[in-house]
Amino acid sequence: MRFERVAVIGVGLIGGSFALALKHAKACGHVAGCGRSAENLRLAQERGIVDSVAQDPAAAARGADLILLATPVAQFEKVFSAIAPALGKDAVVTDGGSTKRDVVAAARKGLGAKLAQFVPAHPVAGAEKSGAGAASAELFRGKRVVLTPLAENPAAVVDRVEQAWAACGARISRMDPEEHDAVLAAVSHLPHLLAYALVHEVAGRENSAQLFSFAAGGFRDFTRIASSHPEMWRDICLANRDRLRAELARYSKKLEQVNRLLDEPQALEKLFAEARAARERWIRSS
Amino acid sequence: MRFERVAVIGVGLIGGSFALALKHAKACGHVAGCGRSAENLRLAQERGIVDSVAQDPAAAARGADLILLATPVAQFEKVFSAIAPALGKDAVVTDGGSTKRDVVAAARKGLGAKLAQFVPAHPVAGAEKSGAGAASAELFRGKRVVLTPLAENPAAVVDRVEQAWAACGARISRMDPEEHDAVLAAVSHLPHLLAYALVHEVAGRENSAQLFSFAAGGFRDFTRIASSHPEMWRDICLANRDRLRAELARYSKKLEQVNRLLDEPQALEKLFAEARAARERWIRSS
Repeated sequence: MRFERVAVIGVGLIGGSFALALKHAKACGHVAGCGRSAENLRLAQERGIVDSVAQDPAAAARGADLILLATPVAQFEKVFSAIAPALGKDAVVTDGGSTKRDVVAAARKGLGAKLAQFVPAHPVAGAEKSGAGAASAELFRGKRVVLTPLAENPAAVVDRVEQAWAACGARISRMDPEEHDAVLAAVSHLPHLLAYALVHEVAGRENSAQLFSFAAGGFRDFTRIASSHPEMWRDICLANRDRLRAELARYSKKLEQVNRLLDEPQALEKLFAEARAARERWIRSS
Repeated sequence: MRFERVAVIGVGLIGGSFALALKHAKACGHVAGCGRSAENLRLAQERGIVDSVAQDPAAAARGADLILLATPVAQFEKVFSAIAPALGKDAVVTDGGSTKRDVVAAARKGLGAKLAQFVPAHPVAGAEKSGAGAASAELFRGKRVVLTPLAENPAAVVDRVEQAWAACGARISRMDPEEHDAVLAAVSHLPHLLAYALVHEVAGRENSAQLFSFAAGGFRDFTRIASSHPEMWRDICLANRDRLRAELARYSKKLEQVNRLLDEPQALEKLFAEARAARERWIRSS
């Protein structure tokens, strides 16, 4: 399996890592990149992530046999519309978006008759660093990539996209977009929102300098994801707003329970012990 | 500065690390330990953390010139009462508790006429691992230790306790217990409660196995502190309950704000960007 020409639309952490991983696996030839920041694209070229820089998504996609969309998800519909006329009939398209219902809807609108060539994907791997400078050939190694294939996809197209992600070292799962967005709202989107909220709450206080100066390793790790890309996470939160609101409501109820348990020492310790045990089981099994 | 005989009451992560750090700095001679778990004490002896195991706190404290209380804070009053009759007149006492108002109150009740020999301390360093097995001579290196000296403490006693913590490599701050508990509620106690709550919420669902299987690095770091010692954190949360409840109320208001902003893309991105910038400033300066 080899892709002669790969187009990466958005050469950031995800797009850049995809290109590096394919190159590392000798699974691709030329990589063309495009994006909004000339400086980031220069860095991507310097680092050997992309071999050429295209003027726009259509120019990148023209002649490519594999195209990855890796911009913030709110831009996907425009990108799909732009690349549709340029897509060769054997080209396959995938993406790195963290939400899937909105991405599928954008593809239906933007790709038209070429919809069947697109297989939605979510690499469940990330980092709080952004841009081509943070890209790594190892980002996806051993990590999950969830495919949410469309009814319109021929099996061969899904296989080819699956092979690309597998070449990056990922473990492939399949899910439908509804289920994907529900699961990720709970274990990824909500924690990001909670971390951003905590840092913003502390930063907004009169004594924030003092507060930060006594914050230690627990606070640092808890809030690591609050250093994530603001625009990317704005788009994810908006795209998955209904699921995220449901998660916020559940979590708020849990906080009310915890608040009540501050008067019930035994029950509070039991909750802590159960949480620790559940987390330890997860860590051991993952 | 050297302590001939040190007593560590509770040879866990904090107590064990204190002993190792003093030994490493050649700042102490014999270390006597005591605690509830015979197995943990055996491990502490095997690892060279303690040189002898005492039957009870009074036996450990007898003849010691430096005593550290490092059990969960709810046990402090009983321990203070037990060691008071055994304290030599030149001995100094400190502690590793994460709350300070309750510790001061416990010392006032338990130490009686020997109160002036006790200088409360909170090493703002920790890990999600517990027990003597997790202890490290480096745990406090470069980390903050907050002293909350009492009006009754002679300056020489405070200095001597400060020297012990400084020998562990810590950076010393002073605060009053009220301020300490308010600051730590915001940047330590609340995040622990939030992390426990999130894991417990996810673990309690029908599809928890699926949810955990798609949790990635962000979830792992966000919830690291939910692997902390349940009894220790029960005691901290109860001791600082009023401050923690005030923090929970503020945080819940912030979550309501974030929920509203899910309808205001620009304002949501601004909040994320401000949080990221504040965190990055903190990381750079710390």
